[in-house]
Amino acid sequence: MAVETISEHACFGGVQGFYRHDSEVIGLPMRFSVYKPPQAAREPVPVLYWLAGLTCTEETFMIKAGAQRRAAELGLMLVTCDTSPRATGIDGATGDWEFGEGAGFYLDASQAPWSRHFRMNHYVSEELRDSVESRFSTNGSRGIFGHSMGGHGALTLALRHPDLYRSVSAFAPICAPADCPWGQKAFGQYLGDDRAQWNAHDASRLMLARGSALTDEILVDQGLADKFLHAGQLLPERFEQACAAAGQPLKLRRHDGYDHGYYFIASFIDDHLDWHHARLRA
Amino acid sequence: MAVETISEHACFGGVQGFYRHDSEVIGLPMRFSVYKPPQAAREPVPVLYWLAGLTCTEETFMIKAGAQRRAAELGLMLVTCDTSPRATGIDGATGDWEFGEGAGFYLDASQAPWSRHFRMNHYVSEELRDSVESRFSTNGSRGIFGHSMGGHGALTLALRHPDLYRSVSAFAPICAPADCPWGQKAFGQYLGDDRAQWNAHDASRLMLARGSALTDEILVDQGLADKFLHAGQLLPERFEQACAAAGQPLKLRRHDGYDHGYYFIASFIDDHLDWHHARLRA
Repeated sequence: MAVETISEHACFGGVQGFYRHDSEVIGLPMRFSVYKPPQAAREPVPVLYWLAGLTCTEETFMIKAGAQRRAAELGLMLVTCDTSPRATGIDGATGDWEFGEGAGFYLDASQAPWSRHFRMNHYVSEELRDSVESRFSTNGSRGIFGHSMGGHGALTLALRHPDLYRSVSAFAPICAPADCPWGQKAFGQYLGDDRAQWNAHDASRLMLARGSALTDEILVDQGLADKFLHAGQLLPERFEQACAAAGQPLKLRRHDGYDHGYYFIASFIDDHLDWHHARLRA
Repeated sequence: MAVETISEHACFGGVQGFYRHDSEVIGLPMRFSVYKPPQAAREPVPVLYWLAGLTCTEETFMIKAGAQRRAAELGLMLVTCDTSPRATGIDGATGDWEFGEGAGFYLDASQAPWSRHFRMNHYVSEELRDSVESRFSTNGSRGIFGHSMGGHGALTLALRHPDLYRSVSAFAPICAPADCPWGQKAFGQYLGDDRAQWNAHDASRLMLARGSALTDEILVDQGLADKFLHAGQLLPERFEQACAAAGQPLKLRRHDGYDHGYYFIASFIDDHLDWHHARLRA
């Protein structure tokens, strides 16, 4: 499948690129972004997928997180994609920042009209992966991380596809979407009333039901001044309890004073890159 | 004068804040941003002013440059302001990204209708400085840097007010605005036909005419894949020649492959912060 280059920019000795392809899985054009560290010009490198949160695009993390500096030092490729299909033409797909375009929740919708295009689980774990890894110099060592709705995505994709992702971490993830307003709104429309489908996309319920096939500890950072934490949208304690019950090692760090935004992410992004690098280079 | 807090965010152990005040100099509300490093909670710290380029706001640098990490390590306060007055209501002030709102060129306009509000030289060097330094914990050691139009601003403000700024650097500055299309469009409307006024806001001409009262070397970084360099908007060679003629030490670094954007700035921002810190702590 053809990949079109939108723009490329020299960045810390590597290349920050933005690309577009016609996605067969989504049935629409999709954009993604790759940071290629300088090491990738000489040898294949590990790759780390970032899943962004509600309202974000493939640009947000690359612009705001300040991740390229450390990725260039470590020799980590960074990949981000959009948070949903765009220009779907579906009634009700725009106008609500919590649902529809910009809010794909990294699942494959089973309910019409969403099931036609909203297939982000399939897109990220297969098509995007193939598109990136067949074109860029990666060595097959792959991690995943994300923020908020994208933290939910990272945890659930890693739990659903433990063969694909060797390392996983998250910032302020939605840990129990079946039990919070954001998740209930999205799952009800994307997945209908079937609670078994809901449970298959809920990190805490997945962990309790299946145990963990992950081979390593999970890292989660959570700010304690995060208004969405206090609104009950994130529920990290649910995931903490599920990991404890399943015997899954979890490093859950709670940070006084930090909120939900990218200034929080930037403050701890180097820790996450170091975390993944230690596991992906093994 | 009252300063209103728009938002504050924990960031690398310090505080990233956005503020608004009613500017007497500008005659309209103005926004600015301050990154307060963790050291400022204990003692006064040096302060470094960033002037942004065409179309930017007080948010751009704080979001895109990735400067807070190193500023937190060094104990440098960072300050940015908007690139012009906003909501001026002046005919022709919006709709052209090269002129008017978003393109104040850090000068005091002498021509109606611009002279009423477009007084960014006076605003930055006096009112913003007073507002920040009377409210935040600074120690009187002050540097200035900027990008493109803001690089022009940093160089000209430092040359016009050598008593105020102890250190100066720039990324891809407009070095000779009297001789490039951007500068000619802006100066013609803000300053009229009086070439003496133009020359007083042109870093290369200022350096040639007055020599330099700066006590230290100037650092300038320029990407060689910068389309505005090739379009003759930046003219770093004019400033290089002027510095040589005036005996002003200049470190002008040319970087293969880098363009005009914030991925370029982020790649070298730590060098600039280190540069200023070495001079401001002295």
